[in-house]
Amino acid sequence: MANNNDKFVNQIADINADYTKWYTDVCLKSELCDYGPVKGTMVFRPYGYAVWERIQAEADKRFKAHGVLNSYFPMLIPQSFLMREAEHVEGFAPEVATVTHVGETELAEKLVLRPTSETIIGNMYSKWIGSYRDLPLKLNQWANVVRWEKTTRPFLRTSEFLWQEGHTAFASADEANADALEMLDVYKELANNVLALPVLCGRKSEREKFAGAVATYGMEAMMKDGKSLQAGTTHYLGDNFARAFDIKFLDKDGTHKYAYQASWGISTRLIGAIIMAHGDERGLCLPPPVAPFQAVVIPIGGAKNPEVAAKSAEIKNTLDRAGVRVTLDERDVSPGFKFNHWELRGVPLRIELGGRDLAAGVVTVCRRDGGDKFTLPIDELATRVVGLLDEITKSMFDKANAFAAAHIVPVSNMDEMRAALDGGNFCDAYWCGDEACEAKIKQELAATSRVFHADQAHAHEHKCACCGKPAKHRIYFARAY
Amino acid sequence: MANNNDKFVNQIADINADYTKWYTDVCLKSELCDYGPVKGTMVFRPYGYAVWERIQAEADKRFKAHGVLNSYFPMLIPQSFLMREAEHVEGFAPEVATVTHVGETELAEKLVLRPTSETIIGNMYSKWIGSYRDLPLKLNQWANVVRWEKTTRPFLRTSEFLWQEGHTAFASADEANADALEMLDVYKELANNVLALPVLCGRKSEREKFAGAVATYGMEAMMKDGKSLQAGTTHYLGDNFARAFDIKFLDKDGTHKYAYQASWGISTRLIGAIIMAHGDERGLCLPPPVAPFQAVVIPIGGAKNPEVAAKSAEIKNTLDRAGVRVTLDERDVSPGFKFNHWELRGVPLRIELGGRDLAAGVVTVCRRDGGDKFTLPIDELATRVVGLLDEITKSMFDKANAFAAAHIVPVSNMDEMRAALDGGNFCDAYWCGDEACEAKIKQELAATSRVFHADQAHAHEHKCACCGKPAKHRIYFARAY
Repeated sequence: MANNNDKFVNQIADINADYTKWYTDVCLKSELCDYGPVKGTMVFRPYGYAVWERIQAEADKRFKAHGVLNSYFPMLIPQSFLMREAEHVEGFAPEVATVTHVGETELAEKLVLRPTSETIIGNMYSKWIGSYRDLPLKLNQWANVVRWEKTTRPFLRTSEFLWQEGHTAFASADEANADALEMLDVYKELANNVLALPVLCGRKSEREKFAGAVATYGMEAMMKDGKSLQAGTTHYLGDNFARAFDIKFLDKDGTHKYAYQASWGISTRLIGAIIMAHGDERGLCLPPPVAPFQAVVIPIGGAKNPEVAAKSAEIKNTLDRAGVRVTLDERDVSPGFKFNHWELRGVPLRIELGGRDLAAGVVTVCRRDGGDKFTLPIDELATRVVGLLDEITKSMFDKANAFAAAHIVPVSNMDEMRAALDGGNFCDAYWCGDEACEAKIKQELAATSRVFHADQAHAHEHKCACCGKPAKHRIYFARAY
Repeated sequence: MANNNDKFVNQIADINADYTKWYTDVCLKSELCDYGPVKGTMVFRPYGYAVWERIQAEADKRFKAHGVLNSYFPMLIPQSFLMREAEHVEGFAPEVATVTHVGETELAEKLVLRPTSETIIGNMYSKWIGSYRDLPLKLNQWANVVRWEKTTRPFLRTSEFLWQEGHTAFASADEANADALEMLDVYKELANNVLALPVLCGRKSEREKFAGAVATYGMEAMMKDGKSLQAGTTHYLGDNFARAFDIKFLDKDGTHKYAYQASWGISTRLIGAIIMAHGDERGLCLPPPVAPFQAVVIPIGGAKNPEVAAKSAEIKNTLDRAGVRVTLDERDVSPGFKFNHWELRGVPLRIELGGRDLAAGVVTVCRRDGGDKFTLPIDELATRVVGLLDEITKSMFDKANAFAAAHIVPVSNMDEMRAALDGGNFCDAYWCGDEACEAKIKQELAATSRVFHADQAHAHEHKCACCGKPAKHRIYFARAY
């Protein structure tokens, strides 16, 4: 599927001139994905799916360490289930896809494709949970979900997407809320160390919370255009679904009580976050922990130089054995074509070996993240590459973190907010807590509240950036994906 | 979710008296699965899903070694796609679930939930394949599929199930057919060495082939009631889907040609095969490579004996470090309850430690597969357990293989066939090749042809077991799940 045309790989839009087209170009031309035949659907091509497999493996390991077990629940949910929790149905009904027929036969009850699984899992939990001994119950599933969206973009918003959804049940409200907060920490650590992605974490406003939750916590990542991407959410559900699905347990004191629940999810959206937080004018820039290939070995003039070809293959095997995900590009195309090809695909390290390098016992190494180019002794390559990959992850995080820090602007009124947003920034604002102000900000500035600031100590000393009345909260506003 | 009742775990039906109820009891009471709220659907509980995760990991490793890349295609397929391949639509139309609405809005084109993905993948392949350089293309996806079935049973036949589907495209017919045969070998090796499952492999008759294939190859496993379970199939599709979806490539000779394809799949049915091929009167018996827990450590009198409790925990950790999946059962219930609990769940090794064992520096080990009970020195436990687990896998395979060999009966007429089938056997038969005979056998004996015998050398010297006319093929007939 390679295209033997040097120009082709350069044909991505200028990131500074047209960020939206740049994003789509990178998605398609790096072969991460393609559009599906049904509007709003997408295909995960092998390169994109391999990134997801890495994210899955890293997340799954963390969930299991947290005592969570994997399971799988049916995708088809009786439509009536959705109706049982009032906010939930209101939030999801307009975007659920409904199955009405099998073959030519109409179904007795309409079924919906899961937009999320609180209801069907609630139904099963009511069957499985009988006593305090059955708690806590902490299950997760890796699954596809369907939410019909009007405006779609690869990875960010598609009719069907892949995600994980954790669903937990506890004997007390405190434990359930703590679970939502702990899983937010798990997500944050994953974002920082695996995706090299700095995130702002905190509770969301009532307006922005999940349909059916008591409280929603989110992690927000800043993209290079200063917009926010909701990269993961965790929900404290109280006993809302327990009441709707009759999840009761016999407690130690001999009385029957409703269970308290949490749920939490991350999705293939994270791939969109990686693209937009780290990508540049040359295309993708993948954090080493999720890169399908962490290094590419390119023999220079290999076709004419059998010693270079042989040594390149040896280097590839040495790195393989050191646990580096590495590929050897032996294609009969120009080095320039290969450089563009792998830069577009965001491979963290390029390792070039030419005749002169070989004679000197070195390779020329080029870092995708900063473009640094240097030589390394072939003898030390395996250990140096492993160290370099770690360094790249840290360096990518630091760079994204510095960018985010430089683009969070304190604002105290609507004009400042507009200027900050138009300049590609998040707003560090104070807010009276009135939903009318959130609505006005959305209406006039196309921005929404993202998460409450971690520091609420002096919020009451300030004024609402929208209405000027006394503030109750310190909160981030941003335009968002 | 444990039930503190010794009797409960014994409450599975007698395998010899009611095999069908025994199967359902084992599925539910070992907590492999549960019924979903929609008729015909099932929930994979953590214990069952963990078995699937092990099967996935083992299969995925083999696919990747075979040069196959993972990807993901949309679940929702335009209804019109199904119509393009005549046999395909005829085979699947009656059992496809159809999405007609999103929220209150009717869709312009009806969408079906994938029953299999040849059509949507064919559509994408036509876009991606342009030149001989793009071939071979070998993709796989791990996904859920929906086929509405009238009679359903956990793992064996449910409206939604989990599987992998490989879809490959080649420049020549030979390569595509070879891929179907090679993947059948991959499946067979997986069945034998990972599931301890002997299988009969071969081509299927026209009547039994996949809707849209030129040839279907299957692997059939014998269950303990002598019925066959189709445990995996691979298909040589010729250019049927390439013509339907216009998958053409520019060949080296400068002409445009249709690609040739293969597809292949295994599913969560394999869990049903494990249950029915290895299970016994005490419940599940899991092959070590897929057992969520390969060993359980049970302290005897641990609550009263802190030294036993401490040593049991130490043994658990030692085995953990040796790479054994092990659990320590410290619950405050009787040893008998624990024995039943873990036997029902098919854990390959039970390791008991009592005060007398501890004093002698040994543990008492009990094998789930044969019931053998013996002592092992604690010092040598880690290496001995690793060896034992391998031995158990081999021994389970040998036992199942001997059972299968003893239940394949040569038959030469309908009476012999009926007797063999009623006695819980496969029939090793000769057949004239006429579909009318297959139909008659199905009608009168409720048996179907499974796969052609590997040895066809002298088939023409025999007579058809159904009509008595000269035979063309040697083929297995059996009742099947």
